[in-house]
This record gives sequence, C-alpha cells and structure tokens, in this order.
Amino acid sequence: MNEEYVARSAQLALLLEVSAYPKPGNVGRTHDFKNTRYEHFLASSVAVYPVLREATSRGKGVGELIRRGVEESMEWQSGGNTHFGALLLLIPLAMAAGACESNDHEGLRQKAKEIMLNTSVDDAVEVYRAFPKAKVKVRTDVPELDVMDEASVKEIMEKKLSLYETLTISAPYDLISRELVGGFDKTFRYASLLRDFARKKSINDAITHTYLKLLSEEEDTFVKMKFGAEKSKYVLERAKEIVRRGYVLKEMEEFDSELIGEGINPGSTADIIAAALFIAILGGLRV
Amino acid sequence: MNEEYVARSAQLALLLEVSAYPKPGNVGRTHDFKNTRYEHFLASSVAVYPVLREATSRGKGVGELIRRGVEESMEWQSGGNTHFGALLLLIPLAMAAGACESNDHEGLRQKAKEIMLNTSVDDAVEVYRAFPKAKVKVRTDVPELDVMDEASVKEIMEKKLSLYETLTISAPYDLISRELVGGFDKTFRYASLLRDFARKKSINDAITHTYLKLLSEEEDTFVKMKFGAEKSKYVLERAKEIVRRGYVLKEMEEFDSELIGEGINPGSTADIIAAALFIAILGGLRV
Repeated sequence: MNEEYVARSAQLALLLEVSAYPKPGNVGRTHDFKNTRYEHFLASSVAVYPVLREATSRGKGVGELIRRGVEESMEWQSGGNTHFGALLLLIPLAMAAGACESNDHEGLRQKAKEIMLNTSVDDAVEVYRAFPKAKVKVRTDVPELDVMDEASVKEIMEKKLSLYETLTISAPYDLISRELVGGFDKTFRYASLLRDFARKKSINDAITHTYLKLLSEEEDTFVKMKFGAEKSKYVLERAKEIVRRGYVLKEMEEFDSELIGEGINPGSTADIIAAALFIAILGGLRV
Repeated sequence: MNEEYVARSAQLALLLEVSAYPKPGNVGRTHDFKNTRYEHFLASSVAVYPVLREATSRGKGVGELIRRGVEESMEWQSGGNTHFGALLLLIPLAMAAGACESNDHEGLRQKAKEIMLNTSVDDAVEVYRAFPKAKVKVRTDVPELDVMDEASVKEIMEKKLSLYETLTISAPYDLISRELVGGFDKTFRYASLLRDFARKKSINDAITHTYLKLLSEEEDTFVKMKFGAEKSKYVLERAKEIVRRGYVLKEMEEFDSELIGEGINPGSTADIIAAALFIAILGGLRV
C-alpha cells in the first residue's frame, strides 16, 4: 500500500485513540496526567510521522525504527512516555502494510508475523536502548530482562537473542510482547470489533467501547506491574460489568474518575486499541 | 529549513489550534459544530501532511497546492470545511519556510510576500475551483468575485487576474485576503505574542488568549459576512472587555456559550491563529 496512505492511517489512529473519552484511567481530550498532557500526545503523533512513513518501505530494522520513533517523539514534546508501546506495535504493522498490496487482514497479519520472526539481535539491542529514552515508568522488581537497561543489553548480546526471542520471555506477563510474538491476534480481532461498533456509533464511542471490551477481556500489563494482581483483576471485573450492562456513559465516567484518582492507567490496552484503529483505518474506517 | 521539520510544524499548529479551549465560537476539543466535529479537524490535519511537505520544495504552484490540500482533506473526513482558510495561509508560508535557511521572521515574511506577489492566473483559477470543493458556507449576496464559482473563474481568465490580484479585491473586507496581500502582518505579530504568552502560561491558554486578543482587535470576516456589521462589532467589543479584564476563564466560557448558541464562529480568526502557531513552532515553541 502507498506509503503516505499507510503513515497517515497510523498517525490518525494515534490521534483518535488519545482523543477518545471517557477511556477509564487514560489520558483523553478531557483530562491529562500530572506530567503527561493531551498536547504531549498530539505533538508526539506529529513527531513520529516521518519514521512511520519510512517503515513502509523497509523490510527490516524494526528496532532501529522504534528507537528513532522514540527519539523523534522526545524531541517534539517534554511529557515523557507517550508512544513507546504504540510504536512497538505500529512499526512492524506499518512495515507489513507497506509490503502488502491490499488491506486484507490475513495477508497483513502473516507479513507482520514474518517481520517479527525475522528480527535480529540488533533489533533487540535498539529496542532495549530506546526504552530508557522513552522514560517509561516501571517498577524495578520485575523479572529478568524486563528492565531494559545496559545490563540487559549485555546479556542479549552475549546470548545472541533476537528481538523476537526477548519478547517471548516477557510474553507470558506482557500484553504487548504477547501481541508481537503471537501474530497480532488481538490487534486484528479488535480492529474488526471497532469497525462493527463504528457502523452504529460515533467514532468516539466506537473507540471507548472497544477499549472497555479489551479491558474486560485481558488484564493490562501496566496495571498488573504497578498495582499487582488483585487490582488488575478488579479492573477487569469492573470493565466486564460495564460491558455487560451495555456501556452506560455514567458508569464509564465513574470508572474513569476512580482509576484516575488512584493513578491506574491501563496503557497497554490503549496501545493495542491504537494498533487496532490503524488496521481499521487502513481498511477504510473514516470519520 | 528541512521539509519534514516545516511540515510537522504546520501540522502541529493545526492540531494545537483546534484543540485549544475555550475559543469562543469555534470547534475545540470540548465541543463540535452540528456537522463538523473535532475529529474531522484531526483527520483533516493528518490528510494535508503530504501536501504541506511538498510545498516546502516548491517555488510556485500556490493555487494547485491549496486545491490538492482541500481535496486530501475532503477524502479523509466528511465534516465539510475544516482547513480552507488555514491552507490559504499555510501553503505560501510553508513554501517560504522551505526556501529560507532559518526561521528569522523578517526573511520568512519577505519570502512569503514574494511568493504571493508572483502568483499567476492559474493559481487564482485553482483556488476558485478548490472553494466549492471545500464546502465553505457563505452568503450569496457578497461582492463581485467573492463567490468562488465557475462564473468567477471565467471572469478571472478573461481579465487575466493573478491570485494576488483577486485577493486584492477582497482584502478590504476579508481578513485572510488582507494577510495574503499585506505580507502576513498579523500572522507574525501574533506569533510573537503567542511565544510571549507561552513563557508564562500553558500552551492551551497561550493559544486561547492570543485568539481573544486577535478577536478584540480585528473584526472576523466569517462573522461579518454571516451576521452583519453590528454583530461583528459586538463580538469585537465583548472580546476587548475580556482582554481588558485579564482573560478570566469564566468570562471566556460564557462568551463561548453565547457564540456557540447563536452559531457565530469566528473562523478567520482561528485560521490566523493556526498560521501564527506555525511560525511560533518553526521558531522553537514546544509543548
């Protein structure tokens, strides 16, 4: 597919995702985090455009493109991590879209899967070096290789681990890693759901409802890592209840206030929704 | 200046302008018009990126670039006119920025002025043909050549009027035309004001305050054309009062509700603020 078409679809996905509200716990157009504001996401979405476009004509270099995307993002805004998780998903998907002739889901999925399988040790090193630049907030007591620092880089190089292999280690507990090694299963599934919702609802509601559906089906990595299993389970159950009762706006807003109040932000869920939006827009979803 | 740098600065200007609130009477992240929603502006800002980038390497073709920008915008969203006025300003400014080595205001201004002076009959024809595509809402009892239709195109071709010359005719009553033939005087002046405000205020408040300052100093073309001189004068006086009293948020919100209620949207003022933001971002303004 045409490079400008693919890059614009990915950029619009980032903008629509962050603009949707209420998206319990996350930055939306109606509220900011303390240091990361809505405008930081806008500027970051603008910043990454050239890298997204370049990705469409590249067969390899996933790690380098992610690292450069992070660097561009940090140069255009001062709000810290905005798109690290989203870029992890969008870069291989944009590469796949550039290599495919149509937006056929199965073709795209296979290509993206192949790109991830073919990643190298260099790709892993680049992503691990991008991580501290992205200023992602993490706990320090996480499993081996999950803290993306120079010690991990050394280990990756010694053991000659490809990006795919390092992600396989984190896949059991990390939603994004699971997508990247699992063939983008959820991304495509929720892209279809998004398009179904968008036939009957506004684009904003289609996004927030898809977000809640995902939150009700998968525990969010950020939430689990920062707040533990019990809280993570609670968030999932609350989301399940809201979905079961038909996405009542008032309930979504209350849930949003509750999570914002406690600082609980399901960031990985938002990243997957951005990737799903990208696939849906590629396939013709319009505002 | 680098093409990606210039294009991203222009795109970020469009996104920050439409996101700022309260911007009395206009679409912002907190409210939509009936048929033109916030998301339509986001999609349009994404759509025009390749044309903005191309403008940076072009010495002529103002009209063609504006027409193509409008076409791209309409292909990516269904909310009608979003960026016709903004593109009229941003295209020659992006061309100037691409041709200049630095963001020195005086150099940029001179180059943009020269680009406008050198426009051709073709440029005029292209802009007049873009106008109906942009679905701008206008009254029909406006002065000669102001209705941009095929009759006007015929007249332009017969009289061999350049874009600059046609804009000279509308300049006395049209804020955007006045900028385009007057050397972008207000764009650069309000860009400086924006940067001054942004030193002490959030980017959102810097934008809304600059918007109100312009509204208090120049009658908006859209308002004057659609609602007449009396209403236009009233809007200016109300804005002047708010500026005089130090931009009290509550007063800005009340003024916003009042204008929204009456359907009064100072669109030309917003377009000039977008252009001023572009110049300020080129000069290093960041979020």
